[in-house]
Amino acid sequence: MKNKVVTLGEIMLRLSIPNFKRFIQADSFDVTYGGGEANVAVTLCNYGLQGTFVTKIPDNSIGQAALNHLRKYGVDTQYIVRGGKRLGIYFLETGASLRASQIIYDRENSAIAEANIDDFDFEKIFDNTAWFHTSGITPALSDKANNLTEAALKTAKAKGITTSLDFNYRKRLWTKEKATEVLTKLCNYVDVCIGFEELAFTIDNTIPPLTEHTIEKYKPIFVAMKQRFGFTYIASTLRENNNASKNKLSAFAFDGENLFLTKKYDITMIDRIGSGDAFSGGFIYQLIIGKSLKEAAEFGVAAAALKHTIPGDFNHSTVNEVESLLKGGDDLGRLVR
Amino acid sequence: MKNKVVTLGEIMLRLSIPNFKRFIQADSFDVTYGGGEANVAVTLCNYGLQGTFVTKIPDNSIGQAALNHLRKYGVDTQYIVRGGKRLGIYFLETGASLRASQIIYDRENSAIAEANIDDFDFEKIFDNTAWFHTSGITPALSDKANNLTEAALKTAKAKGITTSLDFNYRKRLWTKEKATEVLTKLCNYVDVCIGFEELAFTIDNTIPPLTEHTIEKYKPIFVAMKQRFGFTYIASTLRENNNASKNKLSAFAFDGENLFLTKKYDITMIDRIGSGDAFSGGFIYQLIIGKSLKEAAEFGVAAAALKHTIPGDFNHSTVNEVESLLKGGDDLGRLVR
Amino acid sequence: MKNKVVTLGEIMLRLSIPNFKRFIQADSFDVTYGGGEANVAVTLCNYGLQGTFVTKIPDNSIGQAALNHLRKYGVDTQYIVRGGKRLGIYFLETGASLRASQIIYDRENSAIAEANIDDFDFEKIFDNTAWFHTSGITPALSDKANNLTEAALKTAKAKGITTSLDFNYRKRLWTKEKATEVLTKLCNYVDVCIGFEELAFTIDNTIPPLTEHTIEKYKPIFVAMKQRFGFTYIASTLRENNNASKNKLSAFAFDGENLFLTKKYDITMIDRIGSGDAFSGGFIYQLIIGKSLKEAAEFGVAAAALKHTIPGDFNHSTVNEVESLLKGGDDLGRLVR
Amino acid sequence: MKNKVVTLGEIMLRLSIPNFKRFIQADSFDVTYGGGEANVAVTLCNYGLQGTFVTKIPDNSIGQAALNHLRKYGVDTQYIVRGGKRLGIYFLETGASLRASQIIYDRENSAIAEANIDDFDFEKIFDNTAWFHTSGITPALSDKANNLTEAALKTAKAKGITTSLDFNYRKRLWTKEKATEVLTKLCNYVDVCIGFEELAFTIDNTIPPLTEHTIEKYKPIFVAMKQRFGFTYIASTLRENNNASKNKLSAFAFDGENLFLTKKYDITMIDRIGSGDAFSGGFIYQLIIGKSLKEAAEFGVAAAALKHTIPGDFNHSTVNEVESLLKGGDDLGRLVR
Amino acid sequence: MKNKVVTLGEIMLRLSIPNFKRFIQADSFDVTYGGGEANVAVTLCNYGLQGTFVTKIPDNSIGQAALNHLRKYGVDTQYIVRGGKRLGIYFLETGASLRASQIIYDRENSAIAEANIDDFDFEKIFDNTAWFHTSGITPALSDKANNLTEAALKTAKAKGITTSLDFNYRKRLWTKEKATEVLTKLCNYVDVCIGFEELAFTIDNTIPPLTEHTIEKYKPIFVAMKQRFGFTYIASTLRENNNASKNKLSAFAFDGENLFLTKKYDITMIDRIGSGDAFSGGFIYQLIIGKSLKEAAEFGVAAAALKHTIPGDFNHSTVNEVESLLKGGDDLGRLVR
Amino acid sequence: MKNKVVTLGEIMLRLSIPNFKRFIQADSFDVTYGGGEANVAVTLCNYGLQGTFVTKIPDNSIGQAALNHLRKYGVDTQYIVRGGKRLGIYFLETGASLRASQIIYDRENSAIAEANIDDFDFEKIFDNTAWFHTSGITPALSDKANNLTEAALKTAKAKGITTSLDFNYRKRLWTKEKATEVLTKLCNYVDVCIGFEELAFTIDNTIPPLTEHTIEKYKPIFVAMKQRFGFTYIASTLRENNNASKNKLSAFAFDGENLFLTKKYDITMIDRIGSGDAFSGGFIYQLIIGKSLKEAAEFGVAAAALKHTIPGDFNHSTVNEVESLLKGGDDLGRLVR
Repeated sequence: MKNKVVTLGEIMLRLSIPNFKRFIQADSFDVTYGGGEANVAVTLCNYGLQGTFVTKIPDNSIGQAALNHLRKYGVDTQYIVRGGKRLGIYFLETGASLRASQIIYDRENSAIAEANIDDFDFEKIFDNTAWFHTSGITPALSDKANNLTEAALKTAKAKGITTSLDFNYRKRLWTKEKATEVLTKLCNYVDVCIGFEELAFTIDNTIPPLTEHTIEKYKPIFVAMKQRFGFTYIASTLRENNNASKNKLSAFAFDGENLFLTKKYDITMIDRIGSGDAFSGGFIYQLIIGKSLKEAAEFGVAAAALKHTIPGDFNHSTVNEVESLLKGGDDLGRLVR
Repeated sequence: MKNKVVTLGEIMLRLSIPNFKRFIQADSFDVTYGGGEANVAVTLCNYGLQGTFVTKIPDNSIGQAALNHLRKYGVDTQYIVRGGKRLGIYFLETGASLRASQIIYDRENSAIAEANIDDFDFEKIFDNTAWFHTSGITPALSDKANNLTEAALKTAKAKGITTSLDFNYRKRLWTKEKATEVLTKLCNYVDVCIGFEELAFTIDNTIPPLTEHTIEKYKPIFVAMKQRFGFTYIASTLRENNNASKNKLSAFAFDGENLFLTKKYDITMIDRIGSGDAFSGGFIYQLIIGKSLKEAAEFGVAAAALKHTIPGDFNHSTVNEVESLLKGGDDLGRLVR
Repeated sequence: MKNKVVTLGEIMLRLSIPNFKRFIQADSFDVTYGGGEANVAVTLCNYGLQGTFVTKIPDNSIGQAALNHLRKYGVDTQYIVRGGKRLGIYFLETGASLRASQIIYDRENSAIAEANIDDFDFEKIFDNTAWFHTSGITPALSDKANNLTEAALKTAKAKGITTSLDFNYRKRLWTKEKATEVLTKLCNYVDVCIGFEELAFTIDNTIPPLTEHTIEKYKPIFVAMKQRFGFTYIASTLRENNNASKNKLSAFAFDGENLFLTKKYDITMIDRIGSGDAFSGGFIYQLIIGKSLKEAAEFGVAAAALKHTIPGDFNHSTVNEVESLLKGGDDLGRLVR
Repeated sequence: MKNKVVTLGEIMLRLSIPNFKRFIQADSFDVTYGGGEANVAVTLCNYGLQGTFVTKIPDNSIGQAALNHLRKYGVDTQYIVRGGKRLGIYFLETGASLRASQIIYDRENSAIAEANIDDFDFEKIFDNTAWFHTSGITPALSDKANNLTEAALKTAKAKGITTSLDFNYRKRLWTKEKATEVLTKLCNYVDVCIGFEELAFTIDNTIPPLTEHTIEKYKPIFVAMKQRFGFTYIASTLRENNNASKNKLSAFAFDGENLFLTKKYDITMIDRIGSGDAFSGGFIYQLIIGKSLKEAAEFGVAAAALKHTIPGDFNHSTVNEVESLLKGGDDLGRLVR
Repeated sequence: MKNKVVTLGEIMLRLSIPNFKRFIQADSFDVTYGGGEANVAVTLCNYGLQGTFVTKIPDNSIGQAALNHLRKYGVDTQYIVRGGKRLGIYFLETGASLRASQIIYDRENSAIAEANIDDFDFEKIFDNTAWFHTSGITPALSDKANNLTEAALKTAKAKGITTSLDFNYRKRLWTKEKATEVLTKLCNYVDVCIGFEELAFTIDNTIPPLTEHTIEKYKPIFVAMKQRFGFTYIASTLRENNNASKNKLSAFAFDGENLFLTKKYDITMIDRIGSGDAFSGGFIYQLIIGKSLKEAAEFGVAAAALKHTIPGDFNHSTVNEVESLLKGGDDLGRLVR
Repeated sequence: MKNKVVTLGEIMLRLSIPNFKRFIQADSFDVTYGGGEANVAVTLCNYGLQGTFVTKIPDNSIGQAALNHLRKYGVDTQYIVRGGKRLGIYFLETGASLRASQIIYDRENSAIAEANIDDFDFEKIFDNTAWFHTSGITPALSDKANNLTEAALKTAKAKGITTSLDFNYRKRLWTKEKATEVLTKLCNYVDVCIGFEELAFTIDNTIPPLTEHTIEKYKPIFVAMKQRFGFTYIASTLRENNNASKNKLSAFAFDGENLFLTKKYDITMIDRIGSGDAFSGGFIYQLIIGKSLKEAAEFGVAAAALKHTIPGDFNHSTVNEVESLLKGGDDLGRLVR
C-alpha cells in the first residue's frame, strides 16, 4: 500500500482572540497556523499515513514558524518552496451562543498566491504517491494559483494518482460565477468530489437546500454530476448551525448508486474551524486503507465532530479516538484514567 | 435630529477572576471598567449616536484609566469632573452552571458618591441634548448622589429633554423602602420608565411575579403608574435564570395602551453583566431615530441578548449585528468568513 | 462534638492544560495539587470541621508547595511526614463535548507509595478524632501503602473512631481482582462504605449496572454487603456521562433497611475531578453534625454537583452555598449582588 | 526558647500590573496580599519561628483570600478578627530603569483602620510570646488604629515581651509632624527601634542624610535616642536608589556603644516592596535565637537583599539561602542542580 | 496659543512576542498599535496639547481597534479616513543582551500606502493648527504616499503652519538614493528638521559618524543644510547601542548658530521602539509652549529615555514625570508611595 | 560531506516557573522539553546539518509531545524508540540577581534510563554518519544507560565515526568517584573531549581552578589527557558566575599543541540552561564543515553566549546570527528593521 498523500494549498498565520473577546477588545492573539489542505495533511499523519504538504512560504521567521508547525505534526515539508512576499494571515474572533464567529482575511499577495508553476517539480512531488488532494480555496487565491492548481491536478491525474477536490466555497475570495466556472474546469481531473453545491446548482437550480429530508431529491443531481465529471464518489459534511456554540454535524456519500447518510453528532464547539478538513482527511484515510465508502464517511464525520472540540485549525485525534466515538455509548464523556 | 444623549452615574473598576476560579483561588484579575449609565453611553456610541457620560472620578492614574476606557469606545468625556478620593471597585466571581456569579462591591466613598451638585454645570452639559438617562443605582450611592440625580433630572426636564430612568434595584446599596421613596420622588421628572417592580408594588402588592403568563395582570398597574407619573413608556427586560450558564431573556414595553412582549432568546452566558444597559441603550437609540415602541423593545432585547455573549461590562455590538440577530434564522451561528 | 477528621492518602501535583488544548498542544500547565483524601480534608475544613490530612511528601520545594496548598485551605498538616523521593504527578487534559478528559498518571515511587508504617504515629494522629477516612486509591499505590492503609484502619477501629472507605477503583493502578481482594480485607475495619461495585459483584455478578431503574435490584446485595462487613451505611454517587461537558449526578444511601435516592443534578462541567470526594466530605460532615442519612446524602450530592463548577481538584464551597443549591428554585443562576 | 512572635498591622490586597505596563495600559492585575507586619510574620515562619499575625479583615471572600494567603505560608491566624467594611487595597505599577515604581493607596476605611481595641484580647494574644513587632504604618491608618497600636505595645511591654517598632514613614498617610508626635509617644514602649530618621531629626535637625560616610556623625544622635527612649538597639537598612532596576542595600545597627555597618549588596530588582520587612524579620529571628547584634544585622540585610529578587510582598527565603548569600563568593549565581 | 498639532502617517498593528521568545517559539502575540506620527500625536496629548492624527485605515474591526487605541489616549481621530484593503502589520521579536530585537514588516498595500490625495481635505484638517509633523517613513510607503506627504506639507506651509519632518530612514522600505531624493524635495516645505544623516551626506560625504566627539565637525554641515532648506532648527537623538538591553541616549539641537548637546541617559530597555517619536513630541511640545531650543531638546531626550521603560510603541508619560527625570538626583528610582 | 550527526541521551519535560516566581508561588509552569544531547541535535539542524537524536520515550501523549518538539526543529526522530514508564521531568526555578536558579530533578525510572541495548540497532542508526555525540549525563542515569552509552560509543568508533563526549558532571546523579571511573572508561572511545575537570583531576589534583590566568598551567594536563585517551581535541566553555542575571562566558580549545582562549562575552541572562550544548553544537558544526579548531571554538562560544538570551533549553540561532555576534562592533544591540 502506498501511504503518501500530497496536498496543495495555502498555510496561513492564524491569529485568534482568546476568552471570547471581540476584535476591539483584543490585547493578545493566540498564534497558530492553518489552512484546509495543510489540515488534511496533518490529519493523515495523525492517522498513520504520510501527509505531504506543498506550498510556497516566505523565507523569513514567520514562514519558518509555519513550516515548523507542520513538521511538529509529522508532515513531510520537503517540497515546500521558500520565497515570496508574505504569509497570508487570518484573524479569528470566536463567537459564542447568539454571536457568530468572524474571520477577517488578510491573505492577498501571499507567497502561494503569487507562486509560479515552475516553482514546483510536480513530477518529483508526485513520485510514489497514492492520492492528491486540494480544495477550491487554492484556485480562488489568484489567477496564478488557479493555474497552479490545474497543473497539479493534471499531472496527478496523468500519473494515475487518485485526486480529490473539496469545493470549500469562500465568498470573500471570489464570486459564485467565477467559482463555478473554475470548479467546472478543475473537476475534469477529479476522482473524489467533496462538496457539491456549486456544481449541483449548475445542473438543477430548483433543488431545495440539502437536509436529511431532501437528500433523496439530490440523487439525480449527483448522478448527473458523476456522469459529467466521471467522479468515483461525491461526499460532504452537512452542518446545522444552531448557534455559535452548538452545531449538529453529519455527512453523506454517494457512489453513483447508493447514497449514504451518516450518524449525526451534537457538538458543543471549542473551535469552529477545520472540521471539513478533518472529514476529508478521515474519509481519504479510510478509502486508502481499503474501507468501504460508508465506513469512510462515518469515520470522516466522527473525525470532523471531534475536531470541533480541539482548539486551533488542525485535527489532532488518533484513529483510536475516532473509533471510540464511532462506537459511542454511555461512556462518551467518561474520564479516561 | 439631535444625536447627543447624556447619561449620569458611576463608573467602577471591575476586577473579575478569569477561568471560573473562585475568589479564594484568584491569582489575577481581569481589569475593565463598568457601570450602568456608562454602558448606556457606550452602547449609544456603538449605534451611531453621541453618548456623553457625566461622572466624577479621582485625579489619579486609576481614574485616568477609567476615562481612557470610555474614550476608547467613543464616549464624550468632556464633562467628567476629576477629583474625590477613589474610584469605586467591584469584584466579580463568574459562576457556571449550578454556581451563581457573585459580586463584591467596594464602592463606598467613591468620587461620584461624594460629588456636589455644583461640581457640574448641567445647563452646559445638557446643551443641544436629545435625551437624558440615569438609573436607580446613582441615587442609591449616597444622599449627595441622590440630590445630584434629582438636580440633573429636574434640569433636563426643564430644558425639554426626554428623560429615562432604569430602576435597577441593588439590595446591597439601600433598602426596598428607601428605594421606593426615592424612586417615587425621581419619577416625577421621568418620561420613560425602565423597570417597574419597585413602583408596581406600591400600587398593587398582590400581583404575581411578572412572566409571559401573568403579563396581562400587570396592565392595570402600568396604567396606574403611567397616570401617576406621566410616563410616556414603561419597558423592561424579563429574565429567566435557568442557571449561571443559561438564561432566557425577553422584554415588554407599554405605551399606555398596548403591551408588547418581545421574542425570547435562549442564551449561553459569556458575561452576566450589562445586558439591562444594552437594552436601555438599544431601546433609546431606536426611539431617537424614530422607530416604534415595539421595534425599540425588540431591538433592545436583541442587543441585550447579544451583550451576554461579550466579555466585560460594555455592550460592543453594531446595529448590523443586532439586526442580523433580529432576523434570526438558521444562520444564527454560521461562521462569518 | 469532636470535630477532628483524619484522612490518609496521596497528594499529587496536578498539571492541567488550559483552554481545552490537547497534550501535544500544551505550552503551559496550570499548577494545583490534588488527591481524594486531601480533598475530603479540605471539604471538611470548608464546612467548619478540622480536616487533618496524613501523608508523606518529599522534603523539597515541590513538596513544600503541596503542603502550603493544604495549609492555605485550613487543613491540619502537622502529621505530614517529610521525606521520600518524589511527589506523585498527574497530568490532566480537559475534554469537551464529544472528547473525554484524559489523565496520565506519573505517580510511581512517590513518597507515600514508599512510606513505612513506622513513619507515622497513628496513636497520636488519631487522638481526639471523630472520624477516619481513606480510599481504595491508597492501598492501590503499592504493597507498602496497602499495609499502611490497613494499619491505619485497624488502629482507628481499635480506638472506636468511625471509619469510612471510598472504593474509588482506578484500573491503571491495579487489577479488578487485586482490588477486590484488598478491599475485601480492608472492609473489615470500615463502618461507612462509599462505593459498592467492586464488592457488589463479588456477591452477585448478575446484577445490572446501577441506575435509577435498577436500584431496587441492588437492595439484597447491599443487605448482604452490610451483613458480611458490618457496614453502618453504604452510599455512592451515581453519574450519567452524557458527554465531557454535561453530566447528571445523583447519589444513593442505604442504612440496611432504607435505600434513598437523591435529587439528580444536570451539570455543565468546569472540572471533572473531585466531585466524589466532595460527596464524601459533605456526607461525612452531615453525619458528624447529626443529620439523617438522607440529609447527608442530599447534602453530599449537592456539594458534589457544585464541585464540578469549580476549577481544580479541591471542593471550595461553603455550607450556605450547598444549602442554597439544595433549596433550588428559579434563582439558581441569579447574580448575587 | 519561646518561638512565638506576634505582629500587628494591616494586610492589603496588592494589585500589581504585570510586564512593566503603566496603570493606563493595564488589562490585568496580579493578585497577592501584603503589608509590613504580615511580611515580618511570614519571614519568621520561613526561618522556623511561629509568626502570629493580628489584624481585622472583612468577613467576605476577599478577606478570606487574604487570610488563606497567610495560612499558606504558615502564619498563625487564630487571633485575626473578622468584620469591618473592606480590605485595604494598594495598586502597584512596577517601574524600570529611569521610571520609578508607583503605588496608589486605596486603604481608607479598612477593617483594621476602623477596629476597636476591644476587638482584640491582647492578654491572650500575647500568651507565651517572645517578641512583639509593629510599625509606624499601623498608627498612621487612623486615630483608632493609633490607639490600638499603643494598647498593644503597652500590654506587650507590661508582660515583659521584647517589642520592636519599624518607623516606616508613609507621607501619603500622615504628616511628618503627626508621625513624629505619635512615634515619640509609642517609642516609650519600644525595645528595638528599626528606622531612625523621624526621631533623629527631633534631636538634631542639622545632621546630614545618613550614608556610609556620615554614619559617624549619627552616633551622638543614636546615643541620645537610646537614652531618651531606653532602646536596646537601633537598626535600619540603608538604601541607595540608583534607579528603579538597580539598588544598593546595606544596614546599620547600634547597641548604645558600637555602630555596625553591614556588607552592601548590589541588587537587580524583581520586586521593590518588602525588603525592609525582610530585614526586620531576619534581624528579629537572629536576636531571638541568640545571635549577636552584628550577626543579626548582617543576616537581616542579606534577607532584605534576597527579598528584592522575589516577586510579591512576602519574603520567601530559607535560612540556608540567606546564609549562602552571606558567605557569598564566586558561586553567587551558579545554577543549583 | 493654538494647541492643535496635526500629524500624518501610518498606524500599524504591532504584534510582539512576550517573554523574549523568538519568532519560531511564539504561541501568542501581544497586540498594540504603533507608528511614528501616531506616537507623536499621543505624546502631545499626554503633554496637554491636542494631537490630531491623519491617516487612512480599513473599514473593518482591525481598523476600528486601531482607531479606538488612538481615541483611548485622547488623539483627535475625526479626520481619519476609513477604507482601503488592510492595516499594515509589523511583527516584533524583542531581543535581549547580545541578541538584537528584530522587526518583520508586513505593511505593503496598506490603506494609507494606497490612499489618494483627495481622500483628505487638508484645508479643513489644518484649520486652526499650530504645527504639522510627519516623517520620512510616510513617503517611503509608496509613490501615492509620497505625493500625499508632499501635498500635506505644501498645504501646511502655505497656511503658515510650522512644519517638522523626522527623517527616520528605513532601509527595508526604500533605498538610500530614493530616500535622499525624496527628502531633499520635501525639505523645501520643512521648518524643523529632525534627523540629519541623509541630507548631511549629500553635502559632505567625508564627515565621520556623529558622536559627542565629532559633533563640532558637523556644524558647517548643519549650517549648509539650514541655508539650503531654510530650516529653523535641526535636531536629533543620538543613540549608543551597547546591546539590546542597554542603550545610551542623548540629543543635539542646532539653531543655525548654537549647537546644543543634551544630557546623556543610561537606559535599561523595556521597549526598543518609539523613543525617537517621544523626542519629537516632547521637543515640539516645548517649542509650542515657548521654551528655548535647549530646553526643548533636553525635555525631548528625557521623554525619549523614559519611553524606553514603557512597553508598546506609544509614549505614556506626563510632563511631571519628564521634568522629574530632568531634575534627576539620587531619587531617580525611588518608590513613589 | 556527510552531514548526519547522531546524538544519544535523555529528553526531559521541562517545567519552569514564569515571572521569577519561586516554587512555592507557582500557579503555572511553562512547558518545554530539554536535554543536552537533544539540544546539540537541534543546534546542528539550525546550522544546516542533519541532527539525529536517539533516545527512548514513553508511548503516551507526553512522550509524543517531546517527540513533536524535536520534529518541530527539524531533528530526525526515526530512531527514537517508544516504550518504558515515564518521561523524565525537571523543574526549573529561574533566579535573578543574588538568587540562584534552581533545578529539581524528577528523572528516575525514565524510559531511557531503563532502556536496553537491544532496543536500538546502532549499526543502522550510525549508517552514513559523520559524527556521534553524547554526554556524561547519559551514563549517569543508570547502569543500563551506562552500558548503552558504552555500546553506542564502541559501535561508532568501530565504524570510523568521529565521537565526542561532553563530561557535564551532575552531582545529583552520581558521585565524583563513580563519574570519574565511568568517564575514564568511556573516553577510550572518544575523539573530541568537551569538558576536562573530572579527568584533569585524576592526573594532577594540585592544579588550580581553570581561569584565564591559570590556563597555561593546564597545558601539561591536557597533553597527558590527550596521550592517555588519544583525544584529537579537548575543549570547554569557561563560565564566570557573577550572579544569576549576569555571567561571563569564554571557551578554550586544545589540539595537543596549541591552547586557544576565545573572546569573552558579558551576558545578561534570559535562560541559564543549554549554553554548553550550544557550544558543543556550534563547535562540532564548524569542525564538520572544515573550519579550524580556533574558529570552531570562537563560533561555539558565540553560539553559547547567544543561547543565554533565548528562553527554553534549545539553542535557536542561525549561522548568520552567530557570525554577526562574532563580528561584534557597536551594532551589537541595534534594532534589526
